[in-house]
Amino acid sequence: MKRLALLSVAFALAARADEGMWTFDNFPAKKVRQKYGFSPDAQWLQQAQLASVRLAGGCSGSFVSPEGLVMTNHHCSHSCIEQLSTKEKDFVAEGFYAPTLENEVKCPEIELNQLIQIGDVTARVQGATKGLKPGKEFNDKRKAAMASIERECAAGNDRLRCDVVELYHGGQYSLYKYKRFQDVRLVFAPEVAIAFFGGDPDNFNFPRYDLDVSFLRAYEDGKPVRTEHYFRFSPAGAKEGELTFVSGHPGGTDRELTMAELQYQRDVALPERLFDLAQLRGALTMFTEQSPEHHRIAENALFGTENSYKAIKGRFEALVAPTLWKQKAERERALRAKVDARSSLRQKYAGAWDDVAKVVAMFQPRRKEYRYVEQGAGFNSPLYRIARDLVRGTEELQKPNEQRLREYTDARLPQLKQGLFSKAPLYEDFEVFKLSYGLVKVREELGADHPFVKKVLGKKSPQELAQELVKTKLYDVKVREQLWQGGRDAVLASSDPMIQFARMVDPDARAIRKWYEEEVETRETVGAERIAAAKFEMEGKSNYPDATFTLRLSYGAVKGYEENGHRVDPLTTIGGAFERATGRDPFRLPESWLRANEKQQLNPSTPFNMCTTNDIIGGNSGSPVFDKDRQLVGLIFDGNIQSLGGEYGFDETVNRAVAVHSSALIEALDHVYGAQRIVAELKGAPVTATGPAAR
Amino acid sequence: MKRLALLSVAFALAARADEGMWTFDNFPAKKVRQKYGFSPDAQWLQQAQLASVRLAGGCSGSFVSPEGLVMTNHHCSHSCIEQLSTKEKDFVAEGFYAPTLENEVKCPEIELNQLIQIGDVTARVQGATKGLKPGKEFNDKRKAAMASIERECAAGNDRLRCDVVELYHGGQYSLYKYKRFQDVRLVFAPEVAIAFFGGDPDNFNFPRYDLDVSFLRAYEDGKPVRTEHYFRFSPAGAKEGELTFVSGHPGGTDRELTMAELQYQRDVALPERLFDLAQLRGALTMFTEQSPEHHRIAENALFGTENSYKAIKGRFEALVAPTLWKQKAERERALRAKVDARSSLRQKYAGAWDDVAKVVAMFQPRRKEYRYVEQGAGFNSPLYRIARDLVRGTEELQKPNEQRLREYTDARLPQLKQGLFSKAPLYEDFEVFKLSYGLVKVREELGADHPFVKKVLGKKSPQELAQELVKTKLYDVKVREQLWQGGRDAVLASSDPMIQFARMVDPDARAIRKWYEEEVETRETVGAERIAAAKFEMEGKSNYPDATFTLRLSYGAVKGYEENGHRVDPLTTIGGAFERATGRDPFRLPESWLRANEKQQLNPSTPFNMCTTNDIIGGNSGSPVFDKDRQLVGLIFDGNIQSLGGEYGFDETVNRAVAVHSSALIEALDHVYGAQRIVAELKGAPVTATGPAAR
Repeated sequence: MKRLALLSVAFALAARADEGMWTFDNFPAKKVRQKYGFSPDAQWLQQAQLASVRLAGGCSGSFVSPEGLVMTNHHCSHSCIEQLSTKEKDFVAEGFYAPTLENEVKCPEIELNQLIQIGDVTARVQGATKGLKPGKEFNDKRKAAMASIERECAAGNDRLRCDVVELYHGGQYSLYKYKRFQDVRLVFAPEVAIAFFGGDPDNFNFPRYDLDVSFLRAYEDGKPVRTEHYFRFSPAGAKEGELTFVSGHPGGTDRELTMAELQYQRDVALPERLFDLAQLRGALTMFTEQSPEHHRIAENALFGTENSYKAIKGRFEALVAPTLWKQKAERERALRAKVDARSSLRQKYAGAWDDVAKVVAMFQPRRKEYRYVEQGAGFNSPLYRIARDLVRGTEELQKPNEQRLREYTDARLPQLKQGLFSKAPLYEDFEVFKLSYGLVKVREELGADHPFVKKVLGKKSPQELAQELVKTKLYDVKVREQLWQGGRDAVLASSDPMIQFARMVDPDARAIRKWYEEEVETRETVGAERIAAAKFEMEGKSNYPDATFTLRLSYGAVKGYEENGHRVDPLTTIGGAFERATGRDPFRLPESWLRANEKQQLNPSTPFNMCTTNDIIGGNSGSPVFDKDRQLVGLIFDGNIQSLGGEYGFDETVNRAVAVHSSALIEALDHVYGAQRIVAELKGAPVTATGPAAR
Repeated sequence: MKRLALLSVAFALAARADEGMWTFDNFPAKKVRQKYGFSPDAQWLQQAQLASVRLAGGCSGSFVSPEGLVMTNHHCSHSCIEQLSTKEKDFVAEGFYAPTLENEVKCPEIELNQLIQIGDVTARVQGATKGLKPGKEFNDKRKAAMASIERECAAGNDRLRCDVVELYHGGQYSLYKYKRFQDVRLVFAPEVAIAFFGGDPDNFNFPRYDLDVSFLRAYEDGKPVRTEHYFRFSPAGAKEGELTFVSGHPGGTDRELTMAELQYQRDVALPERLFDLAQLRGALTMFTEQSPEHHRIAENALFGTENSYKAIKGRFEALVAPTLWKQKAERERALRAKVDARSSLRQKYAGAWDDVAKVVAMFQPRRKEYRYVEQGAGFNSPLYRIARDLVRGTEELQKPNEQRLREYTDARLPQLKQGLFSKAPLYEDFEVFKLSYGLVKVREELGADHPFVKKVLGKKSPQELAQELVKTKLYDVKVREQLWQGGRDAVLASSDPMIQFARMVDPDARAIRKWYEEEVETRETVGAERIAAAKFEMEGKSNYPDATFTLRLSYGAVKGYEENGHRVDPLTTIGGAFERATGRDPFRLPESWLRANEKQQLNPSTPFNMCTTNDIIGGNSGSPVFDKDRQLVGLIFDGNIQSLGGEYGFDETVNRAVAVHSSALIEALDHVYGAQRIVAELKGAPVTATGPAAR
C-alpha cells in the first residue's frame, strides 16, 4: 500500500501535459519531443532567450528586428502612452504612430532587460547563513551575500543588471545577468478601443478580438540598438494544433505553497486584497467619470485596478473550489507521509511544514501594519514614493552596499533613479484623490486609536492632510535631483510637506520591516528551503520552479476547449470583431477600423486572436508566441478565465493562453494604420532615419 | 467514551451564559433566576411585549409614553429625516425638533408593529405538505396555507398585520399578530454628527459616545395613539453589574446552519456580498463628495452600505477564524453521530444533512441569476421597485390570494402600498447613478453574453439605458396610483420606459424564482425541518430559534470586557466625547453641544454609552434596555466588533451590546436641545396640543 501511495505521488508531482514555466537552463526537451516530435537544442534555446526581453515594470516583450524594435502589448506601454499624452493630445484614445525614427518618443519609465547569462549561486547564498538560526544575523548575512554577488556581477556598469533570483522557494539561487536599456521609445500604439476591445467585461475571456500591441524601440547612445537576436514574423501564422512556444516573464505563481500558506491566502490575504480593490475600483470609476481630463489621467490606474481585481478574484475562486483544495491537501499529506516514512528524510525535513504554519500564524496579526506602514498601502501616490526614496535612499547610501535595504543596493540604483527622476507628469487632483482615499483606509484598517494613525493624522481629517501634502514641490524633477544630490543633510533640512511626512513615517516603517525581515522572513526562508530540499531529494529537478518574474519557456499548441458543454474554437477572425461591436464602449470599434472596413481593406477571415495550451500567467503579457523555427506567430496578451486558477496549478483541459495572431498584427498595421515603415521592418527591410519608403 | 461525548455535546447545545434571543412564549425564566436572582412572570413578559414595537423597515423601538411616543435610533429614522429634508433645509445635518404636536411631521415610509398575540400554526403549515415530495405541489400547498392563515387572522383589517413566522428553520411555525401603525410622525432627532459621532471608523466599536436616538409618534385617525403599555424612564439608569433586558427584533442569525451551508457562506455568499458592497461603497463615497446636495440625498445610502460592509466583514472574519469553525464542525459531527447511533433517529433523520448539502450545491451555479434577475440586485433603484410592484402586483391581484407570490398576498398589501405610494422624493441624478452602477454589475456578474444581459442591454451601454429609464413618470405618486387602479390593462398599455423595462424583465425573473422556490426552497425546507425535528427529539425546546426579525427577549448585565490585554469599562461619559472630538468629521461635535458645554450646562460625568452582555444582532437597533422593574435604562444602537461573530454563536467573554445610557438621553434633551416637551412627557406629564409648558 505504501509503495503504491508513493508512486501515485510521484506521478502527481511530475509536470503533466503542457504544464510548466521552465527555466532556460532546465527545459524538458525530452518530454516535448515525446509529445510533439520536436525539441529545441541549446543553440535554439539561446537564440530564443536573447530575442526575449523583459519590461522591468512588469511585462514581457521581444526583439522583432535587428535594429532594436520591440513588440509588446498595448497595456504594457499604456502608462507610457498616457504619460506622453496631454490634455490637448490623447494618444491613448487616438493611438500613436511615429512615421519616422525622429518621431519616436522616449518613455519616461520603461526599462528593458535582455537576459544574457544565468549562473548558479546557491552555495554562496545558502552558505552565508549556514548554521545560523533565523533572526537578525541570518537576515544580515543573507542580504549582504546577495548584494555582494549582484555588485560584483554588474561591476559598476549601469548597462548591466544583475539579480539574485530565489527559485524553488529557496531551493536554488540563480544569478540572472541582463543587458539593461533605459532609453526606450514609443514607435506605435493603436487606439485603446481596439487594443482593449470588450474592456473589463471581456478581460480574461475567450473568444476575443483585441489588437493589444505596441511597438517600442531600444536605443543606446541615441541610436537604435543593433541585435542579431530577434524573432522573424511567420508568413502564415499558426494553425490549430500547431506546436507553440512562449518565452516570457511570468510574474509569480503559488503552486508550491504549503496548505497553511494556502489557507492564509484563501481566508485572509486574497479576500482582503479583493475588498480593497473592489472599493478602489468603485471610487476610481467615479473619478474617471468626473471629466474627460480625469478619464485621461486615471484610466490606466482604473484598468490596472480592474485587471488585478478580476485576476485575484479568479484565484480566490480557484482556492474555494473543492477539487483543487483536495488535490493540494492530498499532495501535501502524501509528501509528508513519505518524509515521515524514512528516518533519513524525517530527521532533516519533518518539522518544516509546521514551522511554515507557525510563521504564517505569527505574521497574520501584524499583516496590516506591515502592509499599511511599511508597504505604504495607504500612501498610494507617486509623490509619496518619491519622497520616501529620497528620505530612505539618502540615508541608505551612507551605508556600505552590503548593509543597505535591498532596494537601495548599488545594483538597484539605476532603476530606482529612473523612477525618481521620471519626467512623467503628476496631476494634483488625482494625487489628492489617491492620498485621501489611502489615508481613510489606513485609519480604517489600523483603527482610529492606533498610535501610528494618531501620529500621522493628529487632529486632521484625511482630506485635509492630503491637501497639505500635495503642496509638495516634488512635482519638479529638478527639486528631486537637488535633494538627491544634497544627500541626507539636504533631506533633513527640507521643509517640503511630503518629505517631512515621509520622514515622520519612516521610523515606524523601518521598525515593522525589521521585525518582518528578521522574525518572519528568515523563518520562512529556512522552512521553505527545507521543504524544497526534501522535494529535490525525492524528485530531483523534474519540476519547474514557481514563477518569479524571470525568463521562462513554455510549450503547448493552438487548441480549443469545452466550456459549459459547448466547444470554443481556438481562433477568432477580424470579421468577428465587427459582429461583436455595439458602437458603445467598451464594444466600440475605433473610426480607423470602421473606415478600413467600409473601404473593404480588411479581410474579415483573417485570424484575429487565438488560444493555446501554453502555461502562462500575469507578467507574460507581451510574450512572443513562436513556432519550432522560432518564427513569430502571435503575441500573448491574456489568459482565459479558467487560466486564473493557474496561480495554483495547471489544468490543460481548460487553461488557455490568449494571443493576438500574427496575421492580424500585419493586417492591421498595413491596412488600418498604414504603418508601412513597421511592416517593412518586420519583413526585414533596413531601418533608415526616415524609415522604409511608404509604398 | 460515547456517553462522555454525548454529555459534552448536550452541554455545548444548551444555551450558555447570557446567550439567547428568546421568544416571549419560551423564555428561560428559571435560568435567569439561577444567575440573577430574578425572573419575569407572565404579566411582566406581556407588559414588556406590548410596550415594544417593530419598525417594519428593519428596526426596533418602544413606546415611552401613554400617548404613542416611540423611541428608536436616529439611524432607524435616518431615511425619514432625509426624506423630509430639502435642498434648503437639511434636518439630518441640523437635527429636528417639533416644539408642539402640530409640528410633528409624517414619515412617508415608516410602519410600526406592536405584537399583540402569538399562536402556534405548525400543524397546519406542516400538514399542508404532508407526504408530498419537494417540488411544485409542495411549494404551492405550503404558500397557500400560509396565505390563508394570514388572511383569516387579519380578516381584512388593515390595522392588523399577521405574519406566519418560520422558527427553528421550519421546526415550528408561529402566527404573529400585530397592531399596525402607518401614520408615524417625526418628533425629534439630533444632528447626525452626534447621533453617529465617530462615524464609520467608530461604528461597531466600544468605547463609544453617540446620541443615536430619535423620537417618533404613532397616530391613529389623526390623533396620537393611546397605549397603556410603555416603558418609563429609570430615574438613575443602570450601573455596572446590573441585570438588563432587551426586547427587540433581531433580524437574522445563522447559528443553526449546517456545515455545508456555513461553507457556502464563508466561501461564496459572504465574499461576494463584500466585493459588491466594497465597490458600491467606493462609488457612493465619491458620489456624496460631488456636491453638498449629493451628500444630502445619498448619505443614508452610504451609511447603510458601510454599515452592512462592516457587519458582513465581521461575520466573514468569524467564519475564517479557526476556533468557531472547529466548534461548529464538532457540534455537527457529534449531533450526526448521535443520530446515527440510534436506529429510531437514524431512520428519520440520517440523510438530512447531506440533503441540505445537495441543495446548496444545486443552488450555487444559479445564485447569480437568482440574485440579479429575480432579486433585482442590478436594478437597485426605487423607481424600478415601484415599476415592478405595479407590473407584478396588478398581475398577481388577478389571482386568488392563496395562489399569489407571497409579497402580493392580502396580508402584505398595506405595507406594499405604503411603499408604492410613498411621497418620499426621488432624485434623478441619484437614480441614474444607481441604475448605471447596477446595470454594469449585471453585465459583469452574468457575463456580456448571457441571454438576459443581451435582452436587457441590447446594443445600449448601461449608462444610456439608465438615462432612458429615469425619464419615467413614476416620480409622480398620482401616476403610480392611476396605474395601480387601472390594473393590469393600464400597466400593459403604459408606454412608460420603466414600466416597459420591468415588464421585459418579469418573465425571466419569474422563471428563475419558480425554479428557486420549487426546486431549491422546498428541498431546503424539508431538509431543515428534519434537522430541527432531530434536535427537538434530542433536546426538546431548551434552545432558542435563530433570529427572524420577530420579537425576542434577551437578558444580561452591564459589563466590561478584556481586549488586547487591557480592560474596557462598560460605561463612557459625556466628557469623554469632548476628549475624543477633533473638530473634523466624523469626530466633530455639533455646535449645539459645543455651546452647551461652553455654558457649562452639561455634566461631563453623566454616563453616555454603555455595553452589556445582552445577546443582540442587527434589527435590534432601537431596542429598549430595561431593568427588572421594566424601567428604561438605555437604548440599543450597536454591538462591539466582537459581536459581529454573533451571527454564528455567542461568546459572552467579549460579545457586547452597545446602548445609549438613559441619563445621557435626558441630559441631552434637557440641556442641549431644550426639548422640555419631550422630557416632561418621558417623565409622565400629559401631552397637550401645544405640549407641556416649557419650564
